[in-house]
Amino acid sequence: MNDDNTKVKIMELREIMKTISDDMISDEKEGLPQPPMEKPCGGSKLISLTKDFDNVVKNNNYLDLLNSRTSKRIYTDEALSQDELAFLLWATQGVKQVVGKQKKATLRTVPSAGARHPFESYLFINRVDGLEPGLYHYLALEHKLEFIKSVENQVDRLSEAFSGQTFFANAAVCFVWTVIPYRSEWRYGKIAPKYALVDVGHVCQNLYLASEAISCGACAIGAYSQELADGLLGLDSTPSFENDNEFIIYAASVGKLKL
Amino acid sequence: MNDDNTKVKIMELREIMKTISDDMISDEKEGLPQPPMEKPCGGSKLISLTKDFDNVVKNNNYLDLLNSRTSKRIYTDEALSQDELAFLLWATQGVKQVVGKQKKATLRTVPSAGARHPFESYLFINRVDGLEPGLYHYLALEHKLEFIKSVENQVDRLSEAFSGQTFFANAAVCFVWTVIPYRSEWRYGKIAPKYALVDVGHVCQNLYLASEAISCGACAIGAYSQELADGLLGLDSTPSFENDNEFIIYAASVGKLKL
Repeated sequence: MNDDNTKVKIMELREIMKTISDDMISDEKEGLPQPPMEKPCGGSKLISLTKDFDNVVKNNNYLDLLNSRTSKRIYTDEALSQDELAFLLWATQGVKQVVGKQKKATLRTVPSAGARHPFESYLFINRVDGLEPGLYHYLALEHKLEFIKSVENQVDRLSEAFSGQTFFANAAVCFVWTVIPYRSEWRYGKIAPKYALVDVGHVCQNLYLASEAISCGACAIGAYSQELADGLLGLDSTPSFENDNEFIIYAASVGKLKL
Repeated sequence: MNDDNTKVKIMELREIMKTISDDMISDEKEGLPQPPMEKPCGGSKLISLTKDFDNVVKNNNYLDLLNSRTSKRIYTDEALSQDELAFLLWATQGVKQVVGKQKKATLRTVPSAGARHPFESYLFINRVDGLEPGLYHYLALEHKLEFIKSVENQVDRLSEAFSGQTFFANAAVCFVWTVIPYRSEWRYGKIAPKYALVDVGHVCQNLYLASEAISCGACAIGAYSQELADGLLGLDSTPSFENDNEFIIYAASVGKLKL
């Protein structure tokens, strides 16, 4: 990495991680309307989820969870229960409160810069009791799961899109988070991508701890084909400035552990 | 945000959040030596930290912590104990294991892409029992705190560097995380900045939960002057391709809560 072009590229890329002081005027300051806090439900089949986790959490000892958490890639064939899945969704994106009158915002189990929460949570489900395998979408505001579609050869296609990581493709549940950048850009302009990346880290850390609490293991996935993985969700990876532009930002597998 | 230049800029910035498939050849693949896992200790005064947190953690109920966590900006004047501070450092960057023979890596309480952990933890301490106010650096491998220097008018200078956020400047402890990009670029090249931003989100989410566990509140800080804040640490914000380049990536305040 020693030629001059590479050096310039390295310097440019490092700047992504810094704050920006000469920010562009935000659409919020210009009085443009706030984008929706959630992608509208398009599915027909809605699954209600519990918020009562007292009997779902098997290990509620925070120190234990903190110390036992590692990235775990070896799972049993066991299915998760719907209540366990509800807990993972709650821990990662659960809406505790909707605040504000005109400019509404959600307070969730994870922090997000300016409470923008620019993510949508998708699940490729292989094994959850009572749910057919396929692609699902979490409606955080409603705390409901929306069935989107069955995916033919789901495991193979996940493996192909996620860099051949078969442990991910075969996991009971594959979490896939997308970002809708404009939800944060509306307020933060150019600094929005930095905030969104940090924020999805908050989300995934909660998935790790919540998985440990229900005798599961999790493993975050940063390596995937943007084009193939977005395609599996029916999204287009082509660069776009549109306000409804959406693409995958991060993913993680969850499966039961051998006890 | 409707002129063509802005549209192009928006598209470019959004690309930061995607994966990169045409990655540059990494220095690791070219056989270049791995950079150090930790910035060497430069201070003279070392403070040993406990790893026994059974009597430090006041609320060890994970469900409670998950549900009570919000960004908290109102603190009492109470000091933290050194053991409480040790717990926060452990939860955010604690090294559980050093693995590998030649290519060593650390397994920590938080995940990091490829176990690169490209961060250093600095603390501006206002109120911790038995520690003079000033700037400290966490030696994660040793689980020790290193005193760097006293900072004249620390509160005012923190307030100035961190966008006038006086709750942060006045907090018992101000966490400031820097990134040493090359520690991750050595393996991941161009995708390293994305991974580092996500990884520091993992770190901060643990700070939130660990703070709640010791009757404290935390608040993440994404808005600051890169130049002024880096300057407070004695770092230079000028773009650089050097392997020892280091700058602030994220911050958070921690203080005691009124019970």
